[in-house]
Amino acid sequence: MDLDNKKTGSVGIVEAQRAHFDTPLELRSGAVVPAFDLVYETYGTLNAAKSNAILVCHALSGHHHVAGLYAGQPKSLGWWDNIVGPGRPLDTDRFFIVGVNNLGGCHGSSGPCSLNPISGQLWGADFPMVTVPDWVKAQARLADHFGIDSWAVVIGGSLGGMQALQWSIDLPQRVRHALVIAAAPKLTAQNIAFNDVARQAILTDPDFHGGHFYQHHTAPRRGLRLARMLGHITYLSDDQMGEKFGRVMRNDSGDYNFGYEVEFEIESYLRAQGDKFAGFFDANTYLLMTKALDYFDPAQAYDDDLAAALKPAQAGFLVVSFTTDWRFAPSRSREIVNALLKNDQNVSYAEVTSNYGHDSFLLAIPHYHAILSAYLERIRL
Amino acid sequence: MDLDNKKTGSVGIVEAQRAHFDTPLELRSGAVVPAFDLVYETYGTLNAAKSNAILVCHALSGHHHVAGLYAGQPKSLGWWDNIVGPGRPLDTDRFFIVGVNNLGGCHGSSGPCSLNPISGQLWGADFPMVTVPDWVKAQARLADHFGIDSWAVVIGGSLGGMQALQWSIDLPQRVRHALVIAAAPKLTAQNIAFNDVARQAILTDPDFHGGHFYQHHTAPRRGLRLARMLGHITYLSDDQMGEKFGRVMRNDSGDYNFGYEVEFEIESYLRAQGDKFAGFFDANTYLLMTKALDYFDPAQAYDDDLAAALKPAQAGFLVVSFTTDWRFAPSRSREIVNALLKNDQNVSYAEVTSNYGHDSFLLAIPHYHAILSAYLERIRL
Repeated sequence: MDLDNKKTGSVGIVEAQRAHFDTPLELRSGAVVPAFDLVYETYGTLNAAKSNAILVCHALSGHHHVAGLYAGQPKSLGWWDNIVGPGRPLDTDRFFIVGVNNLGGCHGSSGPCSLNPISGQLWGADFPMVTVPDWVKAQARLADHFGIDSWAVVIGGSLGGMQALQWSIDLPQRVRHALVIAAAPKLTAQNIAFNDVARQAILTDPDFHGGHFYQHHTAPRRGLRLARMLGHITYLSDDQMGEKFGRVMRNDSGDYNFGYEVEFEIESYLRAQGDKFAGFFDANTYLLMTKALDYFDPAQAYDDDLAAALKPAQAGFLVVSFTTDWRFAPSRSREIVNALLKNDQNVSYAEVTSNYGHDSFLLAIPHYHAILSAYLERIRL
Repeated sequence: MDLDNKKTGSVGIVEAQRAHFDTPLELRSGAVVPAFDLVYETYGTLNAAKSNAILVCHALSGHHHVAGLYAGQPKSLGWWDNIVGPGRPLDTDRFFIVGVNNLGGCHGSSGPCSLNPISGQLWGADFPMVTVPDWVKAQARLADHFGIDSWAVVIGGSLGGMQALQWSIDLPQRVRHALVIAAAPKLTAQNIAFNDVARQAILTDPDFHGGHFYQHHTAPRRGLRLARMLGHITYLSDDQMGEKFGRVMRNDSGDYNFGYEVEFEIESYLRAQGDKFAGFFDANTYLLMTKALDYFDPAQAYDDDLAAALKPAQAGFLVVSFTTDWRFAPSRSREIVNALLKNDQNVSYAEVTSNYGHDSFLLAIPHYHAILSAYLERIRL
């Protein structure tokens, strides 16, 4: 196949949809969600055999709007648009692709800022903790909704990659390929530490009101802004920050301000990122997502033996890491690869040279996309 | 000399002293401090030639109490006690050692929580920004106070190492050896980014009151706590955190809490560190110190040519880095070494294998202390 001559493009205008599930969902914590909605989008066409479906799992701050644009909103490009579309790695000429906002999210699915069907009030801080296995269960309901017995592929980066891995363990018959990108089999103490500083920033913000800030008509924006600024540092590589911002100052005079206003470009960038995020993201969802990350540890029930945890998996695996990712470094991806190899399971691994740190998984890096395309093209439907 | 048979010990009971300087000090920012105090401690005896003096420069949260104990306070051990004393690397049998709290500090020297001699009010947020070159100027006044023409050694770790480097550049005749430990010639964008998140945590704390929180009888403890938690992550190595805390949970049941209370040991540790720090450190001083770090860049005035900046130095140099320090990695220390080598200046360099990250410089790591001892013993007084 001649990739160079293949026309690639965007999926164009898309629309979000909503599925309602009224069978209670028991969560890992023991809490039960009596009924819930999942908001999703689809791209491409489900074939008659329902064998060409790909589930895209989102990371900490992601959602169902993976690709395309909303009508009349030219800035509404999906967060992973570069990977989805005709001729793109997740090729809509061949696959039926589903993006979903996870349970506990703040983009339309049931979560802290949706109504508790029992009380009729906003869930707020009372929305139960969700874990990666809980998301797999909820996403399986969505598969049922489409009549999809097994996904051709479950794919995700970062926390999304953890969901792909969990799918392969929990519902091995229902996932034929798991693409685990820029992920880790569990968080380190340092990863948890960064998450906890972010959480403490939110929890100690006087506007948090124990998570019931909605009824006070406010939001812990200061805390959420700090959480995002901190998170953002861990998404970028030291090198990339150096190249992009270095010690460049905003003040054209080239001398210091000797004050606390923005002085270096990196400060301006980070503060703007934090402000923007705090303007739209829900603080309770942010808390839930960081805990889902902390809790992810499939080997925990197997005496820390990841190979034992992965034993039930029947999927083929593609594991991808990025050289400058220090949040989930290549060595963390290799832990997954080595556990799969120990089990003689089918795994391909690529370590992509990239200067862009953890965020690389979101970028259209040619080598990375070529690897995904090559893997996905050889999948038989 | 038979190190093994040498008795080593603590300096014992010490007392802080205060020097007053009433000649105005012009700072790098153009601001003038009309008069100021420096609080200091000394260990050992100044020889008749005044040729055996060592200045110990402190890092971000340090102070003048480097070694020994205060009478009746058994928990008051100095922050670098393991290095100072008879037979220790900074050998009080041979050297006269001076610890000083920097200008802008919060341990007795003039700073935000001392009185502005002009207004008679607490300086608070009006205390001017201080830079590393300003500290060198103020410390030179202290040398004058003792009648010390030149320090045998100026030594420091982290921000303290930057002061040692600056001494060698600004007052080359007054420092015979500069020991630059776990430092860097300037901060990277990532270093500045972490500092800015810490500053934003303090500046946006509603209890900050524009830095005039003293008159509101409060303090931005939430922000300072977050700043310290975050800083602490960067002082430790990922490996060490993994070994010391891993994913160990506080809850003996081994299962998750599914709440935001302390869940993992690392959370407990970090929160406790943050709480403790926020209970005694001054938020305005913290802000000033982080800016002094950001501003440190001796090569800036030389078109980023560090060798050109270091050209005036006459000192002998010992540069030490630690393998797992990711705040100021060995590669950053080597930038200093390479610039000195380019100038054919006298430099020794050691990269110490240590699992303890940036904080290694504070620890009694035998190889590290042996290097310091070997270097210091050969200094002729």
